[in-house]
Amino acid sequence: MNQNEFVPQIPYGTRDFLPRDAKKKRLVESALAGLFTRWGYDEVITPTFEYLDILSVGADQEIVQHMFKFLDKNNRLLALRPDMTTPIARVAATRLREQPVPLRLFYLTNVFRYEQAQAGRQCEFYQAGIELLGTAGPAADAEVVALAATAMREAGLTVFQISLGQVEFINGLMNECELPPAERQRIKNCLVQRDLVGLDEALATSSLSPAGQALFKRIPLLHGRENMLDAAYGMVSNDMSRRALDNLAEIYRLLEYYGVSGHVSFDLGIIRNFDYYTGAVFEGYTPGLGFPLCGGGRYDGMAGAFGKEYPATGFALGIERLMLALERQGLTLDGDVKDVYIGWAPGRLNEAIALTGELRAAGRIVGLGLQPQDKAAAEACRQAMGYAKLIYIGG
Amino acid sequence: MNQNEFVPQIPYGTRDFLPRDAKKKRLVESALAGLFTRWGYDEVITPTFEYLDILSVGADQEIVQHMFKFLDKNNRLLALRPDMTTPIARVAATRLREQPVPLRLFYLTNVFRYEQAQAGRQCEFYQAGIELLGTAGPAADAEVVALAATAMREAGLTVFQISLGQVEFINGLMNECELPPAERQRIKNCLVQRDLVGLDEALATSSLSPAGQALFKRIPLLHGRENMLDAAYGMVSNDMSRRALDNLAEIYRLLEYYGVSGHVSFDLGIIRNFDYYTGAVFEGYTPGLGFPLCGGGRYDGMAGAFGKEYPATGFALGIERLMLALERQGLTLDGDVKDVYIGWAPGRLNEAIALTGELRAAGRIVGLGLQPQDKAAAEACRQAMGYAKLIYIGG
Repeated sequence: MNQNEFVPQIPYGTRDFLPRDAKKKRLVESALAGLFTRWGYDEVITPTFEYLDILSVGADQEIVQHMFKFLDKNNRLLALRPDMTTPIARVAATRLREQPVPLRLFYLTNVFRYEQAQAGRQCEFYQAGIELLGTAGPAADAEVVALAATAMREAGLTVFQISLGQVEFINGLMNECELPPAERQRIKNCLVQRDLVGLDEALATSSLSPAGQALFKRIPLLHGRENMLDAAYGMVSNDMSRRALDNLAEIYRLLEYYGVSGHVSFDLGIIRNFDYYTGAVFEGYTPGLGFPLCGGGRYDGMAGAFGKEYPATGFALGIERLMLALERQGLTLDGDVKDVYIGWAPGRLNEAIALTGELRAAGRIVGLGLQPQDKAAAEACRQAMGYAKLIYIGG
Repeated sequence: MNQNEFVPQIPYGTRDFLPRDAKKKRLVESALAGLFTRWGYDEVITPTFEYLDILSVGADQEIVQHMFKFLDKNNRLLALRPDMTTPIARVAATRLREQPVPLRLFYLTNVFRYEQAQAGRQCEFYQAGIELLGTAGPAADAEVVALAATAMREAGLTVFQISLGQVEFINGLMNECELPPAERQRIKNCLVQRDLVGLDEALATSSLSPAGQALFKRIPLLHGRENMLDAAYGMVSNDMSRRALDNLAEIYRLLEYYGVSGHVSFDLGIIRNFDYYTGAVFEGYTPGLGFPLCGGGRYDGMAGAFGKEYPATGFALGIERLMLALERQGLTLDGDVKDVYIGWAPGRLNEAIALTGELRAAGRIVGLGLQPQDKAAAEACRQAMGYAKLIYIGG
């Protein structure tokens, strides 16, 4: 290799976290780990890569397509994990299957998707999240939404909003209208992508009556506070949709007791990307960020594929998106200040070393000069390295 | 997929950390991050995968051979990082090249090697480590050895030993004997693997005189405290080897001031696996573990390949090995105890939720029941989930 021509690069969609950002990331993650722990959640760590067929359980086609794939020595397909929900469902259904429910699990880790990189979302990115497995009722949904809101607050955000939907509302409506599977999928895709032009077209070419088409056109507009629910009740006559609305009302009532309902509104157009959601779903937003900061919901069907049925709900929060939001909103997360730089004259290193030991034992952040310096040079080093104070051991 | 036949597995050499182990890992890593920070080190995070040609800089053939490799969409070879020294040298020589030296950087992350899995070392494993770039003198070497010793102590170990060697001692001896390159490599390989039978054979078939052979046979025996250095001085007449011994003596003297020299002895047979070491090298051991817990040393040649020369030294410590050693030595790292389980009678969930908020705000670890229970059932849940105390909100 010709060293002069060599320009080291890193792959598309990856990044280096230099000290300033790495410190912020550690602060945010430590705060979230502490929060999840106080809510009774235990951390789980799973392999960075797994068998492709395992990671594909419950994942939609787009996710499977965008995994980083490679072969093991037996030519079996491996992939870097694209999310943590599937690995945690696997662990819950196998090694934790004898544990008392509910299982409360959290993770803080990186995931990988070979997609267009964007602000706050590279191909390798970091997520904090929790999964609550084993409980079907609205108390579990409310806990998860409340924890998502509290996580955003704990991380330092002051202005944020959670939009809460329920996939069974739309499923009930589709059943009521006897919509064929292909048409369902097309309409759902438009709703997921918030593609209103596509939705109009999908509806116009569907088997729906004009009245039915009008119903589905209203779905993306069904967002607001509690009075929106009343309007939605008026739109449907099937049990599934009405139970979905009852469920949302009950979750909202519990969120009032958690003290976070002021951050929550309803949005019945939210379906989320994954096929596996089966109940209440939500997304969290904060100003200045053109995409959700977190998202999650109920997915009662997944763990069964791994051999044990669990009703389940959870959420994931994007760490880089959170850091970007904090920065854009001028909210700084300052870590520890570097306390003392110790400079020393020739022959005085011994004393300098002894002093570092005392100061570090007292919890101070101490940088030791590694060569003899005069006091002016030591002061210049202190400044350049950002230490608050100089101690100089002079000749 | 037939669900009944489906047994989810994870790939060879990977593992799940269940809550008990994940908690220990977080405790150990937080302690080490705190320690590195107090010593003035800043965290750096690099991509999990990089271009193979970048990761191969400074890595020996065995490491390159054992990387997990895959292709990007342009058919360029990527690999999962096998260590952090090369990525950090890349970052230091590029994005941090204008920063004042010394650069003190640390990492806590996973690395990947497609090797035989063993206790405390899977194909994916976790390392804590530091790199100190920009200073050539023994003060830097001593700081790194002292920090390695302090890291083992900070993690909870009480009995541990660091063996300190110097690759220039052997290089000087090889120059003095005018050993041809192929013979050098063969002898070094035997020393790295501590293969004494192979060493005898390599020496017997070499171009060395009988006296020269006798010298190299003594190398694996050159371990001990300071008086061993005197014996080693007597073996060599070349400057390079003598300077290597002077260097070790000076590092040892500084380690006395750090208060860790009682854990340090010399071992001139230590070369370490990588080709890139250029000076003092060391390995840390603790009883009950058949392999080093940590290792490192000086590698002045590497960063130059990325466009900026840095004298450099550092070490890496195996997190799983550390956890295994703590367990085998009966040293438990207990995390926070789960404080309170809150059970509630029908209709009392609201009050229970309000109480969780107060207790968690006070820093308590609180698990909320998610369904109404009588007091006996709540007590059974408290026990099963391992909470210290029950609060029951009765009917």
